[in-house]
Order: sequence, then structure tokens, then C-alpha cells
Amino acid sequence: MKSIIKQKFSVSYQYDIHFTSGLFTPENRLLSDFFIAQADGAVPKLLVVIDEGVVTHHPALVERIRDYFGSESAVQLIADVLLVPGGEAVKNQWEPVDRIIESVNRYGIDRHSYIMAIGGGAVLDAVGYAATVAHRGIRHLRVPTTVLSQNDSGMGVKNGINYRGKKNFIGTFSPPVAVFNDNLFLLTLNDRAWVSGISEAVKVALIKDAAFFDWIENHAASLRRRDSEAMDYLIFRCAELHLQHIAGADPFEFGSSRPLDFGHWSAHKLEQLSNFEVLHGEAVAIGIALDTVYSAIIDMLPPSDAQRVLTVLQELGLPIFHPLLESAGGGHPLLAGLEEFREHLGGRLTIMLLKAIGRGVEVHELDKENVLRAAAALQEGVNLVS
Amino acid sequence: MKSIIKQKFSVSYQYDIHFTSGLFTPENRLLSDFFIAQADGAVPKLLVVIDEGVVTHHPALVERIRDYFGSESAVQLIADVLLVPGGEAVKNQWEPVDRIIESVNRYGIDRHSYIMAIGGGAVLDAVGYAATVAHRGIRHLRVPTTVLSQNDSGMGVKNGINYRGKKNFIGTFSPPVAVFNDNLFLLTLNDRAWVSGISEAVKVALIKDAAFFDWIENHAASLRRRDSEAMDYLIFRCAELHLQHIAGADPFEFGSSRPLDFGHWSAHKLEQLSNFEVLHGEAVAIGIALDTVYSAIIDMLPPSDAQRVLTVLQELGLPIFHPLLESAGGGHPLLAGLEEFREHLGGRLTIMLLKAIGRGVEVHELDKENVLRAAAALQEGVNLVS
Repeated sequence: MKSIIKQKFSVSYQYDIHFTSGLFTPENRLLSDFFIAQADGAVPKLLVVIDEGVVTHHPALVERIRDYFGSESAVQLIADVLLVPGGEAVKNQWEPVDRIIESVNRYGIDRHSYIMAIGGGAVLDAVGYAATVAHRGIRHLRVPTTVLSQNDSGMGVKNGINYRGKKNFIGTFSPPVAVFNDNLFLLTLNDRAWVSGISEAVKVALIKDAAFFDWIENHAASLRRRDSEAMDYLIFRCAELHLQHIAGADPFEFGSSRPLDFGHWSAHKLEQLSNFEVLHGEAVAIGIALDTVYSAIIDMLPPSDAQRVLTVLQELGLPIFHPLLESAGGGHPLLAGLEEFREHLGGRLTIMLLKAIGRGVEVHELDKENVLRAAAALQEGVNLVS
Repeated sequence: MKSIIKQKFSVSYQYDIHFTSGLFTPENRLLSDFFIAQADGAVPKLLVVIDEGVVTHHPALVERIRDYFGSESAVQLIADVLLVPGGEAVKNQWEPVDRIIESVNRYGIDRHSYIMAIGGGAVLDAVGYAATVAHRGIRHLRVPTTVLSQNDSGMGVKNGINYRGKKNFIGTFSPPVAVFNDNLFLLTLNDRAWVSGISEAVKVALIKDAAFFDWIENHAASLRRRDSEAMDYLIFRCAELHLQHIAGADPFEFGSSRPLDFGHWSAHKLEQLSNFEVLHGEAVAIGIALDTVYSAIIDMLPPSDAQRVLTVLQELGLPIFHPLLESAGGGHPLLAGLEEFREHLGGRLTIMLLKAIGRGVEVHELDKENVLRAAAALQEGVNLVS
């Protein structure tokens, strides 16, 4: 006996990313309209999970959410709003995920109900993971509150938590049903959080859109002094480029290629080596600097282009070096990040480098000596065009 | 400020279901050919997880697997083959899932590597869950070893574990990359396991294919006396009907409709109320009987058709009643299963009933009095056509 059945199908996803100001003010009808448009007979429930760090800066937020939904008939807010730790802490433990799943059970949140995550990228990741595995997937809504999550991670299809210190070791590919970017949340970010989120925009501009890089270069000073209009445009364009890439390529990353992770192999390792004292955006800025200088060292990128990249990162107030990059002899801990990056993506090592501003190229190996040379050049603050 | 980006994409899946005899015998090249065809440069790893119940009946299995892959160069078997408990036990605890994730970490199993689950439906569900969340999804292979998993659950896209006694409360929709049905595993099943798996074939025939129901009716005796040729056909056709349904409708069940769950609302509850002493296939047979008689009571299905269904179930050796169905006054525990079923599916209650043999119809409510009346009729063994 030998026979076969061939199975084949596609699953379609669509979701809107809204850009607004004051999402939970009574006169803002965006959320209300969203739930009215989704109505399919039964009134769905809504479980809200908020980043504690956001509540610290917006102490009235929970009350405003209760007020907003108090008069809504298209959705039933679960009064027990959950608060979870912000930053990597939320991803380094099971407790917040367990607590969300327990609430799903207690309040009868079903697959047509909603779980809304309000917070930075780490909170969106952890809540998204809980939402996408409870009942094999409850509809999840994201309200990103940081530059980084509004322009990059909050747009995407990935959820996850850490495991034994390894980032996103456990997670799912599962898109949200909608994203609401509220620029008022950005006003209470400290300078470090504000600036660090810009590095993902620099990244996507470098690999995909030279005109956007020019724009960032021209607006570096106003972005650094927290000009809201410049930031609104930066977030919109950066989100748009990320979304276009996800839709056009391999959304659930079945292949080995991950162009949007330019600069990220070392960034992930740097975050881990620093016990997440280095913020993701800062680590990405350093990772961009490292792979840009590497691209110049191997004669792939003109030195003058590499210099432009380093200059714009510095003008934005982003770091381009960290003491953990210092060479410590043969067994440099940073280099272990290359194998961990390959392992997390799976298959063949695939690293994005730069051929020009706005033009990335994938390679399948890095020369370790030249990586350390690039790190040393960043430490010395070498002027590449001299 | 008010603006929007609309995101939209599709994700394609394809996988083959192979039917074979003696998958791990050296002369069977099916698995070997599979890995050779998948090769993409790097040699992937293979972590094998086996149902302890299968190893009890096939004590040489682990050695045969090691021998089979010992000479393979297209894949690297992880020598540490994991054994996990069979049946619902594997889904009622975190330990097996944790152990698999720990092995993924220890042995560097990446997203292009494979996790193969060998066992009954419960083991496939739990291993599939671990595989689909580790690294956000490692390729998983299923080798179903029971009638039930070879003709139904092993074909599908669902994985999951239980939570506080609720079936599949935590899980994912994520298809395997291939399924290998080996009919030799069926030979060591006890009669109860052999027979109970047939109920899913009766189910899918009743809602989709009258000719297949006729075939089952004509082969009930040979199926019950364990004729392998009849079982091979039953499994193939049942798997085919399940696969066609999944591909044609709503594979990841974003809607409320779940036609393949005919007879399942009470079956899930019955399994839980009996502490899983009642096998899934037995519970489904009882659930089919209940909803069939209900369909007749509300004059949707001709009584003679209902009688045919009850007769074939009994000729197959399947139960059509359990003492837990006995009416216990107003608060019948079985009826709680209706709301739990609705909650797990989400949205509006949607239940499949029968209009004719081979023709299901969805309804959005069940009359509780008539449900209890149907249960009482089954208890009394009433002859519906008299």
C-alpha cells in the first residue's frame, strides 16, 4: 500500500493600522466605530491589559478606558483591567501570561472576543502570545505606546516571550486584528526611549528607501529635540515600510531570509549580554553601526556612505558603540550571537549588509576578524572617509 | 491627525499525507525521500517524540528509528528520543511540553529542523503545540498511530493542550509539514481503540457523503472484526473528506461555524465529566446518536434515517448511550457543554444537525427539553421507526 493525499490552502489576513491622538478621549470615535463595524450579532467582550509603566505616566488611564467603554453597547469591557510589568521583565516570566489566560477562563473571553494590549513592544509581545494561544487564538488589538512599538514591532505579526534568557524563544506568528497608534503616549516617554525608537526607522530606510534616509538626515536635529510633527511622519513612514515588507515577502518567515533584521544579530546579543540594560533601539543603533562599518571594510559600501550613517545616528543622539563590543580575545561573546541568530531564524545564516544607502544585500557568512575590526573602529571613533 | 494604513496578505500552506506500511523498515524509502526532497543546503535536525503507549506495544521502535536514520545524510536524528505519556494525560500537564521545549534549547533545534510526533491524537496535539510555539514554530511531522488520529485529528491544523480540565484551552492553528499514516501501528490497538476511531468516519459521512455512509453500513461487520483492507479504505476516505473540508472552508476557524464538530458539543462534555474514562471516539459516537435522535425529534430528519444511524453505530460496536446522559433534573451537567462549546468556538452558538444521511444543517440553538428527550430515548433504546 502506498498512496498520498496532497493538501493545500491559503489563509488571508487583513488589519488596519490607525494613527490618532487621544484614543480614549470621549470625542474620539475611532475605537467605538471599530467595534460597531465588527459587530456580528453577539456582543463581544474586551479584556484590556496595560503596561504598568504607561499607567505610572497616565494614572487616569484605567478610569478613562472604563468611561470610554461605559457607554458602548457594541462591546462589553471586562472591568478587571490587568496591569503587567513593562520592558523585558514581562517576557522573562510566565506569571503575566498565566494571569491573562486565567482571566480568559474566568471571564469567558471567547475567540470572537478581544484582548487589547496597551504598552511598549515587550508588553505587546507577551500579551499577544497569551491572546494567540488561549482558545487557539483570541482577537488581539495593539495600542503601542513607544516610538519603537508604533513604528515597528507593534505593526508586525510576531508575538513571544523569552526562555532562559533567549529572546522570543517561545511565540507565535499571528497578526492583530487592528493597531491603534496614539501619539499622545509618546509625550511622556523619557528622552532615551524617544530617541532609541528612531533606530528602526534608520534601519528600514537604509535597506529600502534612500529618500527616507535623506529625510531622516535632514530632520535629525528636530527629531532629537522632540518635534512631534517630524516624529509623526517618521513613525508613519517607518510603519508603512515595515508593513509593505511583511505583506510582500514571507510574513510567517518560513524561509531563512529576514531583511528587516539588519543590524539585529549583534543587537540581540548585546541586549542579552547587558541584561537588557541596553535598550533594544540602542542595541539596534550599535548593530547598524557595526554592520555598516563591516560593509565598508569588506569594500561593499563606499566609506562616505558609511560615514553618513554614523553621523546621522550620532546626530539623533543614538549610541554607536558599547564597551561589550570590546574585543576580549578569541572567544568574543558577541560572536556567539551569530550562531544564536542563525538558530532562531533556522536554516542557513543570512545577514543583511549594505551596498548603498537604501540598498541592502544578503550574505551568508561574516568574517569574524572583520567584525572585530569593525567593532574596534567604532571604539576608536575612526573617521571612515579620512 | 487621523490616518490609516491597510494591511493585507495571505499565507499558503501545503502538506502531503502519506499512507504506508512499515514506515521505519529499512526498505521503506518514504521518510528518506521526504528529507532528501526537503534539503536546502544545511542538514536539518530531527527530534522524535513518542507516545509511551506505542512503545509498550512496539518495544523495538526506538532502536528501529535510530537504525533507519543512522544511514541518512539528509537529516540528523537527535539520539535522545523523548517518550511522553499517551492519552489525555499528556495534555493535562505542562511537563511534556516543557521537556520538548527544553530539548529544542539543548539540542539547537531550529525553525528549519523537524519535530516528529509518533502516537495517538493527544500526543500529536501536545507535541504539535510545543513544536509550533518553540522558536515561533518548528516544522512538525505527524505519525498518527490510532484509527482516530489517522483518519481525523492527525490530518488537521490544530494543536493544543488542556487547561483546568477544559479541552484544548491552549493551542495553535498550525499545519504539519507532512503526515505519515502507517497501518501497521493499528494492528496492536485493542478492540476498544480500533472501534472507537470509526465514529469520526461515521460523522463525516453523515454530514458530507451519503455514499460513504452506505459503504460503512455495508462494511460494519468486517470493520468490527478488524478487516485491514476495509480499515485502510475507511481511513483514506475519512481523511480525504476532512482534508477537503479544511481546505475549502475556514482552515483557522475565524468564523463560528465548525461543521466537522457534528456530535461534538456533548462529546467534549462527556469526556470531561467521565474524567476521560470515555474515549473521544466513544463520546463522539454517543454525541452523534444524541444529535441524530434530536434531529428526528424536531422533525428535521426522517426517523428511518435516524434508525439507520443508530443501527450502524451499534453494528460497529460503538456505544450510543452513557449513564452520564441520564437526566438529573433541571441542572443537567451535560447541558453546560453547550455554553462551553460556544465559548470555545466563539461568537454565536452553531451546532450541526442532520437533514438527511450525508447532509448536515447548522442551527444556532438547541431546545434543552428536546436534548433531554433525545437522551432519554437513547437510554430506553427506543425504536424510532416503530
